Amino acid sequence: MKFELPKYKHPDFKKEVFTSAPEVVTKPVIKKGVAPDNYHATTIFPEYYKINGKWVLAHESRMDSVVVLKGSCDVEVKEFRRLDIGEQVLIGRSEDASEGIYVYTGGFKSTGEKDETFAFRTGRSRETSYSRDYDRLYDVLKYEKDKGYITWVLGPAVTFDSDSRKAMVSLIEHGFVNVIFGGNALATHDLEGSLFKTALGQDIYTQVSVPNGHYHHLDVINKTRGIGSLEKLISDGHIQDGIMHACIKKDIPFVLAGSIRDDGPLPSVIRDVYDSQDTMRSHIKKSTTVIGLATQLHSIATGNMTPAYQVVDDEVRPVYIYSVDVSEFAVNKLRDRGTLEVTSIVTNIQDFLVNLERNLIK
Amino acid sequence: MKFELPKYKHPDFKKEVFTSAPEVVTKPVIKKGVAPDNYHATTIFPEYYKINGKWVLAHESRMDSVVVLKGSCDVEVKEFRRLDIGEQVLIGRSEDASEGIYVYTGGFKSTGEKDETFAFRTGRSRETSYSRDYDRLYDVLKYEKDKGYITWVLGPAVTFDSDSRKAMVSLIEHGFVNVIFGGNALATHDLEGSLFKTALGQDIYTQVSVPNGHYHHLDVINKTRGIGSLEKLISDGHIQDGIMHACIKKDIPFVLAGSIRDDGPLPSVIRDVYDSQDTMRSHIKKSTTVIGLATQLHSIATGNMTPAYQVVDDEVRPVYIYSVDVSEFAVNKLRDRGTLEVTSIVTNIQDFLVNLERNLIK
Amino acid sequence: MKFELPKYKHPDFKKEVFTSAPEVVTKPVIKKGVAPDNYHATTIFPEYYKINGKWVLAHESRMDSVVVLKGSCDVEVKEFRRLDIGEQVLIGRSEDASEGIYVYTGGFKSTGEKDETFAFRTGRSRETSYSRDYDRLYDVLKYEKDKGYITWVLGPAVTFDSDSRKAMVSLIEHGFVNVIFGGNALATHDLEGSLFKTALGQDIYTQVSVPNGHYHHLDVINKTRGIGSLEKLISDGHIQDGIMHACIKKDIPFVLAGSIRDDGPLPSVIRDVYDSQDTMRSHIKKSTTVIGLATQLHSIATGNMTPAYQVVDDEVRPVYIYSVDVSEFAVNKLRDRGTLEVTSIVTNIQDFLVNLERNLIK
Amino acid sequence: MKFELPKYKHPDFKKEVFTSAPEVVTKPVIKKGVAPDNYHATTIFPEYYKINGKWVLAHESRMDSVVVLKGSCDVEVKEFRRLDIGEQVLIGRSEDASEGIYVYTGGFKSTGEKDETFAFRTGRSRETSYSRDYDRLYDVLKYEKDKGYITWVLGPAVTFDSDSRKAMVSLIEHGFVNVIFGGNALATHDLEGSLFKTALGQDIYTQVSVPNGHYHHLDVINKTRGIGSLEKLISDGHIQDGIMHACIKKDIPFVLAGSIRDDGPLPSVIRDVYDSQDTMRSHIKKSTTVIGLATQLHSIATGNMTPAYQVVDDEVRPVYIYSVDVSEFAVNKLRDRGTLEVTSIVTNIQDFLVNLERNLIK
Repeated sequence: MKFELPKYKHPDFKKEVFTSAPEVVTKPVIKKGVAPDNYHATTIFPEYYKINGKWVLAHESRMDSVVVLKGSCDVEVKEFRRLDIGEQVLIGRSEDASEGIYVYTGGFKSTGEKDETFAFRTGRSRETSYSRDYDRLYDVLKYEKDKGYITWVLGPAVTFDSDSRKAMVSLIEHGFVNVIFGGNALATHDLEGSLFKTALGQDIYTQVSVPNGHYHHLDVINKTRGIGSLEKLISDGHIQDGIMHACIKKDIPFVLAGSIRDDGPLPSVIRDVYDSQDTMRSHIKKSTTVIGLATQLHSIATGNMTPAYQVVDDEVRPVYIYSVDVSEFAVNKLRDRGTLEVTSIVTNIQDFLVNLERNLIK
Repeated sequence: MKFELPKYKHPDFKKEVFTSAPEVVTKPVIKKGVAPDNYHATTIFPEYYKINGKWVLAHESRMDSVVVLKGSCDVEVKEFRRLDIGEQVLIGRSEDASEGIYVYTGGFKSTGEKDETFAFRTGRSRETSYSRDYDRLYDVLKYEKDKGYITWVLGPAVTFDSDSRKAMVSLIEHGFVNVIFGGNALATHDLEGSLFKTALGQDIYTQVSVPNGHYHHLDVINKTRGIGSLEKLISDGHIQDGIMHACIKKDIPFVLAGSIRDDGPLPSVIRDVYDSQDTMRSHIKKSTTVIGLATQLHSIATGNMTPAYQVVDDEVRPVYIYSVDVSEFAVNKLRDRGTLEVTSIVTNIQDFLVNLERNLIK
Repeated sequence: MKFELPKYKHPDFKKEVFTSAPEVVTKPVIKKGVAPDNYHATTIFPEYYKINGKWVLAHESRMDSVVVLKGSCDVEVKEFRRLDIGEQVLIGRSEDASEGIYVYTGGFKSTGEKDETFAFRTGRSRETSYSRDYDRLYDVLKYEKDKGYITWVLGPAVTFDSDSRKAMVSLIEHGFVNVIFGGNALATHDLEGSLFKTALGQDIYTQVSVPNGHYHHLDVINKTRGIGSLEKLISDGHIQDGIMHACIKKDIPFVLAGSIRDDGPLPSVIRDVYDSQDTMRSHIKKSTTVIGLATQLHSIATGNMTPAYQVVDDEVRPVYIYSVDVSEFAVNKLRDRGTLEVTSIVTNIQDFLVNLERNLIK
Repeated sequence: MKFELPKYKHPDFKKEVFTSAPEVVTKPVIKKGVAPDNYHATTIFPEYYKINGKWVLAHESRMDSVVVLKGSCDVEVKEFRRLDIGEQVLIGRSEDASEGIYVYTGGFKSTGEKDETFAFRTGRSRETSYSRDYDRLYDVLKYEKDKGYITWVLGPAVTFDSDSRKAMVSLIEHGFVNVIFGGNALATHDLEGSLFKTALGQDIYTQVSVPNGHYHHLDVINKTRGIGSLEKLISDGHIQDGIMHACIKKDIPFVLAGSIRDDGPLPSVIRDVYDSQDTMRSHIKKSTTVIGLATQLHSIATGNMTPAYQVVDDEVRPVYIYSVDVSEFAVNKLRDRGTLEVTSIVTNIQDFLVNLERNLIK
């Protein structure tokens, strides 16, 4: 069965509820970074605003943000902190068109079999059957490889194990990765895996702790800081394998968002968390599939800025989000946001990656 | 690298500490099922008792049991409840030969690389690297297929997922299974998977809940009770696939130990928990590898009766125990018993089984 | 605010749907322990069956069981295995009166504030606010102390900690306990706490492991087996405190259901799991509140046999079920059964018991 | 029993191993933020360096940092990123005085009972007995209230529950809190609790979700951004209770470290993660007890910068670290760092805080 995107159906704006609806009201920003009272905040769903008699679809959306007018018939979804004085913010907290704002959850409803499935998922645990989720994920990734933008959000555990690290490299090399989000630890332990064959001083194949191995991650960071950049570390030939190596060789971008846990940090790590957000969002605006593995901080941050849909070539399509973690709490935390399109899988991400590589590549 | 069992080295009984040690003392059982005061209780390790001038090795041992004399130079390890009046029970709570009892933890110490690895394992979590554990497990199972006795302890989750159920069947059909321990739910949901393609009323591939699906497991049980036995259910052709089907077709024994959670029960399920223990132990006495998947009750029960070693053809060899569960608490609970030979893997058992099948068979 | 039971409202049987409904059909049992085809299986909810023109309410119900006629206007809910040849079993799998069977989920719907609360509970985790659940539980227990029947299902962890063990004893002594369900380990480690001040050889206050402490639980069991009964152990003065001591002194019954994990077992432990079920159910038939602490096996077994309602003095009232465990998976497993009346609390049961004691007694 | 700090015993520097040891070698920083090769990295333990014939103790230490000379007989422990060109960095990776560096793990060894306890703790889980840990914690906090500096690291869950939020306020008001570390969510949901009685739109007592409650946290942030500061929000009288209110009224500092998950952010939230680290460390340099509740990011960040000891009035004393979370994985992650002084408690932090308040205040 060939994979096809579900068709999106716009609301029927000829209906009375829409034709009789008022224009959406706006108010100006008076203080930088502060929205006017009664601002409208976005959801993860497609939203339409009645502007100059037309229902305008929000694009490159993110939840819990505000919407400002752009010209006479377009909008931009912005974080509060990015509001500039004078911008016109959309006002209203009803979602049923009665204030010129319509939040539309039914666009993908007609796609038969798929809806039924989702309708019955009431919770995901270690006892859920994942056979079909895997099969569907293989289909999604094969499709997205050519036509989409696949964002991976990786916790450092991806680098702790020899096989999963190799599988991730293989996925990068075979075109299944468009951008990687991570933190200082991801890059540090990946480089440590190349330079010392360890992660946090423990051999990534044999699990043996190496004498003075607790120096390894510090040595990696200090060496890279001395050389000046990850790119130069690799072009100088110090690193011959691993995730960072594959990204740089294949010209795949990565975003390393700094956190208060960091040693170092490595060059390339972004110090300012809102700069990190902005950089991440510049990729999420293009993303059509997002896969989060074994990272709560980065996965939740990414989930916060990922809408349920994307407008690609004027077509509205779903964004597929996968959350994979051994902890039900972690995967369900992301899933609680209510989107139908988050698939959570409770397993060890080592096995998950090895499965993916085998079914997509080998 | 070909897999080889580590060599066992008996203690050097010519040493002074052994030659000068007294004979072990015994006292008779006065009341059925009650040991005399100061009884010796077994550990999981090889133990030797000085009897008539010779150091006799316990065989078919299990922890927390007592030891009775058999003839003039043999012993039997028995559960307290199985003690008969008049049996002579070994007495003494020191383990250093000073009472004629020697507990020996160093028999496999000389095996180089392996020891080192184990020495460094301080805890197992979702962040442990399992690449090498998998590789070793593949080697162990290939070896045991011909020369050992492999016991599987299965939770019902094995049957909840289409792929893992098939993988388990494949392992049975290819000779990697000598006996299966489980409960009423394992067999019931496996049969449900055959008759209805569901587990607890949910499709094992699509996850879709089927109308009136909550009747399925009851119907399976009631039908089998009507027919009279699992064997007849299958020989009558009602069941065409699944774990029970494979066991019966391949003549692989299974032990279904009843529990207070059970509906039904199915025929074959053992009502009396100590009868269940005895039946399980009759297999464990032969087992050389034990693999517990996603079951706390049955895995812990099995772990309780599994020693760290087995005497096969007069050679002492280790028993390999694997504990696989998505919960660190569950896998570590078994590992806390202190044996070096428990390998715990924190993952979803669906992925574990699919991995195994692929690497051992496909 | 004084605690009051929600009022139960019977269906209005004068409605057309009920008056025009057919009588429920029955079929006889042909083979002992096997139901006729198309048997009706019970839910946790109040159910009514049309018999001789009257709608008869099931009482002392349990889910996943069958219903047999008793005389001309009564029924008995029975496990399949207890069916006798010739008994008339109710037939039908619709629940809307169309086959003379009506499953009624709305009996407590009118109780205002309470419904609203429950309506909004979508999941329970470590991040749920439990303040009000505790307050309500204190009210429930004060009420039930005089007017209800409170069943406690205890895992052995209750005895591992000095403070929680004392709190539990205090709850028994002050009348908040009508029966205790547990296993061999609960009683064994409780007695070990009295005889040795340890649990599994570790001091229950200081956590210090005692030399040869791994003999303690075996010594407890062997000593009790020698004496012959828990009751005699206590009347002989060997035990001066703890949960078993309090039960026997206060004449509170306890049910110790054996499992395949057991050492020993202690006298009083029931070997046959279906005998255990029957004994447990003889108490559950009277229970109005059930509290399960840190035990999966016994809590799920109890949950399986506990209906959402009880008929007390001809009034229908809800059964309150509390499931307390540090694991979301464990508490939600019980909650998944769909009853509105399960309250799950994710916490350490030590703190839970200490909280209860302080608010109910001190 | 009155609580006393364990006495610290300096090494006996008259011993040959110390008198014959060489002076520690240093090398200069050539590039800003980069250490010379073979730099020494600190541990959590007291370390001494031989400088001008004297063994100088590191103070205000933190693990995984470098040590630079200050004048002729002092040192400063610095993060790599804070190294300035020309600073002299201590060199050497042995810890046994042979390079003029001595890492001392035995300073508190002589304190009898305490050592024994810690010696036996091999793992902490839901089944550990915490009675004595609580008793000790009460003693520690009463002592530290007058003589120490108590740092609390709070996850937002502290504010999700009415009772735990009140307990935390009470601890602040009664002098048991010297500084609070948290993030944007902690402050936001605490203020939401004041303005709307909700957290994430759900009533913090009744759990009822309020209509349009998902606007609450955004409204809190937007309002505060409009007003300009948390302090002004409170002095203007908008907020009458809660954790932020208590801190500002009592002049207790708080550090809100920004993260990529943040909405908003609130004023006071630090954007730059290394600025956050520096601010946090300025408090940790004084901290004698650190308590982390239900926060992985902030607790681990704090743990990373907290040494096992502090020099107070020229005396060396231990730093007590408590890690409280419902997840074994989370508490053990902090504990894996190897310090003897981390006490981890597996429970819901609501119950933990209510326990503390009752035993310390009520």
